[in-house]
Amino acid sequence: MTGGTGEFELIDRLRERLGRSDLPVGPGDDAAVLPPSSGPVVTVDTSLEGVHFPRGWDDPAGIAYRAIAVSLSDLAAMGATPGQVLIALGVPPGHERGFWFSLADGVVEAADRLGVDLAGGDVVRSPALFLSVTAIGSLPEGQDPVTRAGARPGDLVGVTGSLGGARAGLVLRGDLESDGPADGELVQSQRAAVTRLIDRYLRPVPRLEEGVAFGREGASAMIDVSDGLLADLGHIAGESGVGIELEPDSIPVDPDLQEIGDLPGAADPVVFALLGGDDYELALTFPPHLLDPLEQAAGQSSVGLTVIGSVVEGEGVELPAGFADPRSGPLGEHGFEHSF
Amino acid sequence: MTGGTGEFELIDRLRERLGRSDLPVGPGDDAAVLPPSSGPVVTVDTSLEGVHFPRGWDDPAGIAYRAIAVSLSDLAAMGATPGQVLIALGVPPGHERGFWFSLADGVVEAADRLGVDLAGGDVVRSPALFLSVTAIGSLPEGQDPVTRAGARPGDLVGVTGSLGGARAGLVLRGDLESDGPADGELVQSQRAAVTRLIDRYLRPVPRLEEGVAFGREGASAMIDVSDGLLADLGHIAGESGVGIELEPDSIPVDPDLQEIGDLPGAADPVVFALLGGDDYELALTFPPHLLDPLEQAAGQSSVGLTVIGSVVEGEGVELPAGFADPRSGPLGEHGFEHSF
Repeated sequence: MTGGTGEFELIDRLRERLGRSDLPVGPGDDAAVLPPSSGPVVTVDTSLEGVHFPRGWDDPAGIAYRAIAVSLSDLAAMGATPGQVLIALGVPPGHERGFWFSLADGVVEAADRLGVDLAGGDVVRSPALFLSVTAIGSLPEGQDPVTRAGARPGDLVGVTGSLGGARAGLVLRGDLESDGPADGELVQSQRAAVTRLIDRYLRPVPRLEEGVAFGREGASAMIDVSDGLLADLGHIAGESGVGIELEPDSIPVDPDLQEIGDLPGAADPVVFALLGGDDYELALTFPPHLLDPLEQAAGQSSVGLTVIGSVVEGEGVELPAGFADPRSGPLGEHGFEHSF
Repeated sequence: MTGGTGEFELIDRLRERLGRSDLPVGPGDDAAVLPPSSGPVVTVDTSLEGVHFPRGWDDPAGIAYRAIAVSLSDLAAMGATPGQVLIALGVPPGHERGFWFSLADGVVEAADRLGVDLAGGDVVRSPALFLSVTAIGSLPEGQDPVTRAGARPGDLVGVTGSLGGARAGLVLRGDLESDGPADGELVQSQRAAVTRLIDRYLRPVPRLEEGVAFGREGASAMIDVSDGLLADLGHIAGESGVGIELEPDSIPVDPDLQEIGDLPGAADPVVFALLGGDDYELALTFPPHLLDPLEQAAGQSSVGLTVIGSVVEGEGVELPAGFADPRSGPLGEHGFEHSF
């Protein structure tokens, strides 16, 4: 799933040439902040058939819902509240009207449940289904955005909810659709777990309230877990100029991953939690004295906050000595998806 | 180029369900206006290989420049000044790095020349090259947006610059690339005209200063000419609940269209001006007493403003009796491109 070097250089070139913008927060974080200093917070995210969901995926409402939720998650990671979305939609030939009705229903459902207005759209005929969702939000009065660049040595590292479930759901769904090994061997309780895992992928819940609360309470850096915990914490480490020491045993693994055991690719659940993206939990850093108020903020919605490591002098994300680094394993390749 | 009915119904369904938004100007105009009442002005537009430019088009800088210019044109049509863009980019396999460098250069060139910051982006691997450009602008202090809904009987109808050139450029470029009939028969002066026409398509100049000036001077309705003059004035007529009487003889036809004569499809230049979109001029309505200040505003940039008709009670866009309506002719079919 890795693109050619040309595309990576394209992004570098754009960042380099355009990073000297006058924006309070420029491109390169979860979202940009427009002037004045706490002006609108904006981000764009594309969901494309064959990349972010399989070709022929038969749940157009879910596709639309997920595309919007994923874009709003970037606002949550800045501590911003979403206000509006604009959707550029590419429609391939060959679908019945019911498909498009369902997709429209997914847009409406997401707008209603996630509290945003649809402020614009553009529909073009395209070889593959895609939705590019621009999300526009705002910061609470007097509140600074929480960027990726604020982590300081001595901070703790926390994550909301649980990890690994979404990617497992995607893998399992693929197995089920291809009549792979997964279905036949499942007992009833495992079937229920699989359903929840697939839902975890298809209907992620952006941590909107939690993101605002974390910003209010003083989180120093924040990102949403979209590429995978190790990759996303790596962004915080890089932008903040610090190192992060992670304690794998403390990572909250999705309980349904334990339930189904070693089904998806026979991988350790912790490896799924470390590498598997798409959970759209929030990972954040904060001074230790803020642990109580942040836990309370996350507990109010029963999402929860777990401390999984600490910020140190240095660079990159480190695992304990003796823990096999999954980034060099067979699941360690990253998908082709880059924001700038 | 017409899509199936499902896609049209999709748009209707979205507009119907989501049109009841609380936005000062909701989706359905050139751009939406966010709260407060003269808050940010936002729009999104996709440029897609095979739809908005031919597959294999060898000018990636031009593709990027055009995609951004076209999106900013929607802001101009609201009387807004552009501030930022976000770009969702779909990159197909098979291009050399030079292609992506050139595309990045086109983004930078457009940002510099058109005065916008790049506030975000997302790059995904895609079967076809596309750029979905979200543009964010602002209205001058105390200025209302100029929507499509404000035309009143008695108003005059005007258009900036000249029309028909861009579509002719697209047709001619296709002819030249396929070694069609166009190239061999051209004399020198015609070659120069063809070059300018192709540039007219590839490098449209959004009428940014003019749009702001027209808003300030009190234009009652405004739209940019993207789908074609008749189609776009039809949007003003429909949204305003009025009719528009057009005088074809007064329409400013691109002078290069006259130069090359009947080359592109042997069509009358006036027909190209009536049906051919992509010129990104501004069409507007205004009370007759504003003609002088509006002409002055358009004259300052030497773009010019031409009166081409008037607003009446009724509906739709009417041509004089005896003038063959080109909408029922072979060029009358519209491309598949819809905004909501």
